[in-house]
Amino acid sequence: MSKFPIPSSKFSDLLRNMDISDISLATIRQCQSVGQELEAMTNEPIVHLEMGIPGINVHHIGTNAQKEALDKGKAKLYPAAGGIKSLKENASRFIKAFVDVDIDPLCIIPTVGSMNGSFNLVLECSQINPEKDTILYLCPGFSAHGRQPDVLGIRNYTFDVYMYRGEKLREKLEKEFSSGRIAALLYSNPNNPAWICFTEEELKIIGELATKYDVIVLEDMAYMCMDFRNDLSKPFEPPFQPTVAKYTDNYALMISGSKIFSYAGERIAITAISNKLYHREYPELRRRYGLGSFGDNFMLTYCYVCSAGCSHSAQYALSAMFKAAADGTYDFVSELREYGRRAHRSKEIFEKHGFHLVYDKDIDQSIGDGFFYTVGYEDISNVDLLSMLMRCGINAIALNSTGSGKQGIRVCVSQMLAEEDFVRLDERLGIFRKLVEDEVR
Amino acid sequence: MSKFPIPSSKFSDLLRNMDISDISLATIRQCQSVGQELEAMTNEPIVHLEMGIPGINVHHIGTNAQKEALDKGKAKLYPAAGGIKSLKENASRFIKAFVDVDIDPLCIIPTVGSMNGSFNLVLECSQINPEKDTILYLCPGFSAHGRQPDVLGIRNYTFDVYMYRGEKLREKLEKEFSSGRIAALLYSNPNNPAWICFTEEELKIIGELATKYDVIVLEDMAYMCMDFRNDLSKPFEPPFQPTVAKYTDNYALMISGSKIFSYAGERIAITAISNKLYHREYPELRRRYGLGSFGDNFMLTYCYVCSAGCSHSAQYALSAMFKAAADGTYDFVSELREYGRRAHRSKEIFEKHGFHLVYDKDIDQSIGDGFFYTVGYEDISNVDLLSMLMRCGINAIALNSTGSGKQGIRVCVSQMLAEEDFVRLDERLGIFRKLVEDEVR
Repeated sequence: MSKFPIPSSKFSDLLRNMDISDISLATIRQCQSVGQELEAMTNEPIVHLEMGIPGINVHHIGTNAQKEALDKGKAKLYPAAGGIKSLKENASRFIKAFVDVDIDPLCIIPTVGSMNGSFNLVLECSQINPEKDTILYLCPGFSAHGRQPDVLGIRNYTFDVYMYRGEKLREKLEKEFSSGRIAALLYSNPNNPAWICFTEEELKIIGELATKYDVIVLEDMAYMCMDFRNDLSKPFEPPFQPTVAKYTDNYALMISGSKIFSYAGERIAITAISNKLYHREYPELRRRYGLGSFGDNFMLTYCYVCSAGCSHSAQYALSAMFKAAADGTYDFVSELREYGRRAHRSKEIFEKHGFHLVYDKDIDQSIGDGFFYTVGYEDISNVDLLSMLMRCGINAIALNSTGSGKQGIRVCVSQMLAEEDFVRLDERLGIFRKLVEDEVR
Repeated sequence: MSKFPIPSSKFSDLLRNMDISDISLATIRQCQSVGQELEAMTNEPIVHLEMGIPGINVHHIGTNAQKEALDKGKAKLYPAAGGIKSLKENASRFIKAFVDVDIDPLCIIPTVGSMNGSFNLVLECSQINPEKDTILYLCPGFSAHGRQPDVLGIRNYTFDVYMYRGEKLREKLEKEFSSGRIAALLYSNPNNPAWICFTEEELKIIGELATKYDVIVLEDMAYMCMDFRNDLSKPFEPPFQPTVAKYTDNYALMISGSKIFSYAGERIAITAISNKLYHREYPELRRRYGLGSFGDNFMLTYCYVCSAGCSHSAQYALSAMFKAAADGTYDFVSELREYGRRAHRSKEIFEKHGFHLVYDKDIDQSIGDGFFYTVGYEDISNVDLLSMLMRCGINAIALNSTGSGKQGIRVCVSQMLAEEDFVRLDERLGIFRKLVEDEVR
């Protein structure tokens, strides 16, 4: 006899013991812990859709380079403040190859994952001009991004971008930017959790308005080249990863090794600041820190006092992977297509059981199959949907934790590794439908 | 003919080109850059006394464990939020072995170097109680520590502890703590830059007052077991590294792999929070983050949004080194004694040329020979002394950048590696004396 669904009272007890008062507001790490508890309670595997743990093996190019760096004694030495030379150069070439944008090696700084990149960028942007005290986040978004300004005590504002696609985005951004208080705008493209991708027209609108209102665009490219509707896998050949960098000089790109190279454990990424912004002098920064330029402060003030940089040996790993990708000897995009296949197949299973995509379109085009997507079930609320799915042995996170106003869950396919994971999802969703029949109708 | 001293006008031009208006206020990294420029200008090696780059080779125990972790695929996987199990356990045992304090593995969290530990601790301490908005730093201190609250916008206060040794410290701390605004107190012991070490009596005073006024003591143990006046090298045998943890439950210890294991490049350390403080519930944290305990918030709120933890493979390295040290198979303290020998010899050279120790005593006992010491020359000011030494090919940092009110420089002996470094120091100090004769008298 199936151990699912878990009785409602037992599930409530579990949450109470874990100090979680509302599961729809729980962090990804808390949801992960709930899953572990459910596995211990039932002695059955849970379907893990909650966390973006890379489900593809690391390429030996990265680990070999890292091990070689350790053999050469790099563990002893603080890396140069702006990162090792080869990483800066190879990152610059990689960006040219896949994003078709020119950024000097000088303007590329390694960070402790892109999480640390956005943390330091947001803090710096909040200090460049006393009148600009607010960071604008386009939602839905990565919940940890949303929490950063709260932890840092920085004023912030969000809106659900799905309501403002295309030309509507111009009107909405114009309204927000014209307050004069927005220092920076942050988003992930492709989007986490909805996998929506901005069109060139939308990126142009964002870029033009960023220039007009002197707002810095912080573009998180954690999932670059993973919109598989186009083949973005050929270095130095179009089509390229779309970017706001084509339309403004007011930008910083965050490129992480975690997802594109499955190197999440080593906490290594780069922040690439536009040449113009890097060298821009901010009197308020000079007054406060005795250093004026945006880029020097990012490196020597913010990244330095936060962690004195990032792993020396992992910088060699990331450098080698950037180089191999730009050389065309490591086709990282093809390896990532596996996520698209998993998304396609699991979406079919959700749809078979009556679920619908919550965020479904890029204006007139259906969203692609990638790392994430979002589903809802009839009009069931975030908290009820996630609670009932968890009771049926399916773990995820609720959409409200991503700044979305819609009802549903985020599905991450990275841990759908084997045939049995899809069979199990299908079975558990059958149990879920019955549970809805029993408890909701 | 010697290329030193560099003419005053040429040196001023160099600083102007590097955007440094006052060399005595320059950061360590800036001083390092000045040294590189001087080497390029003169084509002669500079005597590097400015930066604490480990000058001892890394033990293969660390690198082997890290390479093995990479071979086992750990680069792909996010480490557990609180760090890998073995690191937590081995750190707990290491602390028992060398500090003689019991801290549960649960309460030990890895950070991106201790810089990141203090960054997140200071931020958290500033948010636990709206009435306690100030961090107190005992100076002289590590300049980056002093810059952290400025970057984070946190009120902070310092005083030179050398003026308040012994019972005077009680009076001074009582005065500061009784304002009710001090959330936390941070210091390094042994002290950077002065190498003064608190006596047991002083640690007792700090601990008692921390309990009385509910102040959290953030004790940076970057140089633990490096006060070579006592043999602290035997695990589980007295004498142990002195600590405030013997006298209060209100503490967090920061133990870094950078100096004691020469593992600075990999940015790996641990923060060990007292069992009682870890579990203490703070209503203000619960209101703000939905999580109440100090330790859970440190791990899941602060360290998470700052960088999502630290290098997975480096955690295995640190774990293995902690284990070997506690097992007694890796005598890390004996290897570090090399720094003491270098300090002793270079101090003699400074004294031969008329320099004096600035911070010279722990109450009635002379300070030991270790990683740092401080010297002054007659009554020459910070800026003049450092400028003239640099012009003579000796690089260092000025004492005012460490929060000290005294005139002098910090000497770090880590880069005094070979016989020729000592010969060069002797020669250059001879040139310096002549320069003083020519320009000052």
